[in-house]
Amino acid sequence: MSTDELAIRNLVALWNSATKAGDVETVLRLMAEDVVFLVAGHPPMRGRSTFEKGLRSLLSSHRIESTSEVQEVEVSGNLAYCWTTLSVSVTSVAGGESVVRAGSALSILRKQDNGSWVLMRDANLLAPAS
Amino acid sequence: MSTDELAIRNLVALWNSATKAGDVETVLRLMAEDVVFLVAGHPPMRGRSTFEKGLRSLLSSHRIESTSEVQEVEVSGNLAYCWTTLSVSVTSVAGGESVVRAGSALSILRKQDNGSWVLMRDANLLAPAS
Repeated sequence: MSTDELAIRNLVALWNSATKAGDVETVLRLMAEDVVFLVAGHPPMRGRSTFEKGLRSLLSSHRIESTSEVQEVEVSGNLAYCWTTLSVSVTSVAGGESVVRAGSALSILRKQDNGSWVLMRDANLLAPAS
Repeated sequence: MSTDELAIRNLVALWNSATKAGDVETVLRLMAEDVVFLVAGHPPMRGRSTFEKGLRSLLSSHRIESTSEVQEVEVSGNLAYCWTTLSVSVTSVAGGESVVRAGSALSILRKQDNGSWVLMRDANLLAPAS
């Protein structure tokens, strides 16, 4: 496995663990400032600061746990894509049932000048899990 | 605009026009044999032959019309991604209301040895349009 592929797999793992830990700063370091998140039925969500606002709001009242399996990573120069299948569980800290969504994500990553990879585009195809 | 970017924009335009014309052979030439289509709520659809079966079945009873706007294309070596916003209208040839879905698609493309580009991964984020 190439250094780049390993770095991208580590990014995916760190994203999950930092989100679960509520470590927003770490999650934000894994994406480009001009990141765009795409999800069906909603307009594109643009920018790290918009993502940050949404994540902080959700984490103020909920716990997020996710597991993911990288299906494939392909790197070409400073561009890469990663296809992941994942399951995300969101639970109110006040208690109650968890809402679980599962499915694929298709992500575009860019290698920065310092050699680290960041998420730049993300297509979220998660649906309610039965 | 680079030759590669122009080729990818032409692929998107040809996909739409060939689908509308019911020209399945042309659409199939625009994708890799091991193409994977991702959509929320369904397992990944793998392979050109699976896509062909679905498209021929749909076209046997429906007309498909789509318009798309390329939001961005980025190429690095033999790999590229393309973000498109599109609207797809499916109408029964027997008549009746059209079903319209709209939204984004995030696609991964590969440059073949002959220099042409083909779709290899596609995340379809279309939702029912109001």
